[in-house]
Amino acid sequence: MQVLTVDLNDRSYPIYIGEQLLGQSSLITQHIRASQVCIVTNETVAPLYLQKLTDSLNEFSLSSVILPDGESFKNLDTLNNIFDGLLSARHNRTTTLIALGGGVVGDMTGFAAACYQRGVDFIQVPTTLLSMVDSSVGGKTGVNHALGKNMIGAFYQPRCVIADTSVLQSLPPRELSAGIAEIIKYGLICDYEFFLWLEEHMDELMASEPAALAYAVKRSCENKAKVVAQDEFEGGIRAILNLGHTFGHAIETAQGYGNWLHGEAVGAGMAMAADLSWRRGALSDTDLERTLTLLARAKLPTKAPADMSPSQFMELMGVDKKVLDGRLRLVLLEAMGKAIVTSDIELPLLQQTFEACKAS
Amino acid sequence: MQVLTVDLNDRSYPIYIGEQLLGQSSLITQHIRASQVCIVTNETVAPLYLQKLTDSLNEFSLSSVILPDGESFKNLDTLNNIFDGLLSARHNRTTTLIALGGGVVGDMTGFAAACYQRGVDFIQVPTTLLSMVDSSVGGKTGVNHALGKNMIGAFYQPRCVIADTSVLQSLPPRELSAGIAEIIKYGLICDYEFFLWLEEHMDELMASEPAALAYAVKRSCENKAKVVAQDEFEGGIRAILNLGHTFGHAIETAQGYGNWLHGEAVGAGMAMAADLSWRRGALSDTDLERTLTLLARAKLPTKAPADMSPSQFMELMGVDKKVLDGRLRLVLLEAMGKAIVTSDIELPLLQQTFEACKAS
Repeated sequence: MQVLTVDLNDRSYPIYIGEQLLGQSSLITQHIRASQVCIVTNETVAPLYLQKLTDSLNEFSLSSVILPDGESFKNLDTLNNIFDGLLSARHNRTTTLIALGGGVVGDMTGFAAACYQRGVDFIQVPTTLLSMVDSSVGGKTGVNHALGKNMIGAFYQPRCVIADTSVLQSLPPRELSAGIAEIIKYGLICDYEFFLWLEEHMDELMASEPAALAYAVKRSCENKAKVVAQDEFEGGIRAILNLGHTFGHAIETAQGYGNWLHGEAVGAGMAMAADLSWRRGALSDTDLERTLTLLARAKLPTKAPADMSPSQFMELMGVDKKVLDGRLRLVLLEAMGKAIVTSDIELPLLQQTFEACKAS
Repeated sequence: MQVLTVDLNDRSYPIYIGEQLLGQSSLITQHIRASQVCIVTNETVAPLYLQKLTDSLNEFSLSSVILPDGESFKNLDTLNNIFDGLLSARHNRTTTLIALGGGVVGDMTGFAAACYQRGVDFIQVPTTLLSMVDSSVGGKTGVNHALGKNMIGAFYQPRCVIADTSVLQSLPPRELSAGIAEIIKYGLICDYEFFLWLEEHMDELMASEPAALAYAVKRSCENKAKVVAQDEFEGGIRAILNLGHTFGHAIETAQGYGNWLHGEAVGAGMAMAADLSWRRGALSDTDLERTLTLLARAKLPTKAPADMSPSQFMELMGVDKKVLDGRLRLVLLEAMGKAIVTSDIELPLLQQTFEACKAS
């Protein structure tokens, strides 16, 4: 087992990464402060892992909330199901919520923990590759609104993250690819050496080879923890973690949440960000090609949906959080392994990117 | 104008108290960081003060959200109206929300600010006595749930509080009384000298005499600011501010939110807390009598509804936040002007209080 630390002073917490961690009772129980625990999971994950986690927690007063599965349920209404469950079972201010599932479960459970009685403890037990390498680390929690993704939420840190990489063996191929999208992101934004490693080991990752997956999870979490420790509330540098996300959110919103997986939309979004970076002269032809090739090897889309027009993109990107005081801000690449955040966007180049990156 | 400070390090903020502050543009504009402002108010307050506040903000890109009036609308659904308004008008992360109204508007606007894009600025402009002396100060924000009051929320501090005491002249008598309930609370829990002042000046307060109101607002805010500065997140001492609230919330829940005003329920709740404190030997016969008399002079109820049974009280108090790990905790008086928080409750005495404090 590997243990990393997200260094945030009195909000610091460990990330445990390894095989068969779900069955190790003491690993999780040391982070539970009182007698009550509520596990929040979804209909897909519950049959697979809920019993195993429950068995580790037999000394606690336990209840569980099972949500419908999917990004389309990541909203205030479904959030209220968690509050219903907590209040019906009389959970008090010392309770601990455990998020057992992917990014949607983690984001919603974390936000519920942030709001329930103005804040209770929570623990992340990610069961997808994407949530292990991204959403479970760093304390961004929240739900979507019909007019924009993740528009309602809180910065709220878990007590610990338990990434049991054995669960990745049962992951459907699309979700494996979606997770690899965020892994590639770290290579692109801040860790060129890791990008080289990914070029070398993509086939092993796509074959769910345990050692390769474990290394990729650890290295991704290290990168994320380092960025988050510098800028917990996204006043500056943390925004680089959003590479591809502004384009990606536009795609997700246009297609209806859940039709594209988040990681797939981010994959296409990173292809668009790389394309625009290339048009601005920051990437060579080869670097753009290598980026698109690596995404394609991960079976990720590198094009936006054919029916999305440039004007629809502009419209949808206009309500994204990353717009500061009315000006569009984007995360782009300055070089391979180095991202920047800029509001100095050449609109004609952006238009060219929209046209060039549309599926035919 | 008086200026107090709530001392919370990097979250410190001023409370301005005085006549005709709503028209003083620079007072509020110095606390707005960018170009966007959204005023959140309700149907009752909007016709009275929205134009006046809007006039002070003509240099900003302004929108407003007008909520239905009343505690029964303090829920996630109505909260979503605020998000709808913010997103439709494309408010970004640098926007400032202004809560113009009483406690419900303030609590909901503060919570919306805490959650919108994971946190934007907000300013409290309380228009009721109760919100001036209580809810606008201290950063408790949130909404109710069908199973419990204020169960969903955040600790989130405003950038400033502007308490324009001239607006109190238009306050309906019931709301004046409701505000005085929280004012009396400060005398009971931590400021016996103020309790003496209130015995002396209750008639002036009930007549809305401006100097008396201004003094009572200032002294209440001073007391609240002092307690909050010691314990922002209610780990300990801050709980004394809930004197009468556990009983009061039970009454509000039983009667349906909004039928009793919050201050009225707290009035009856404080009478019950005083009664129990007297049964435990902490208050003399005279002190109990003085407390009940002062509440009655403020035209506040000192009895719970006739149809509420002891078992209903116990049931409803069981889901209150102030229950820690399954044990009932109450704020009681140790002496006049001195509150304690205790879970050492003699159930037979509590039963006697329920019986004694029931309206006939």
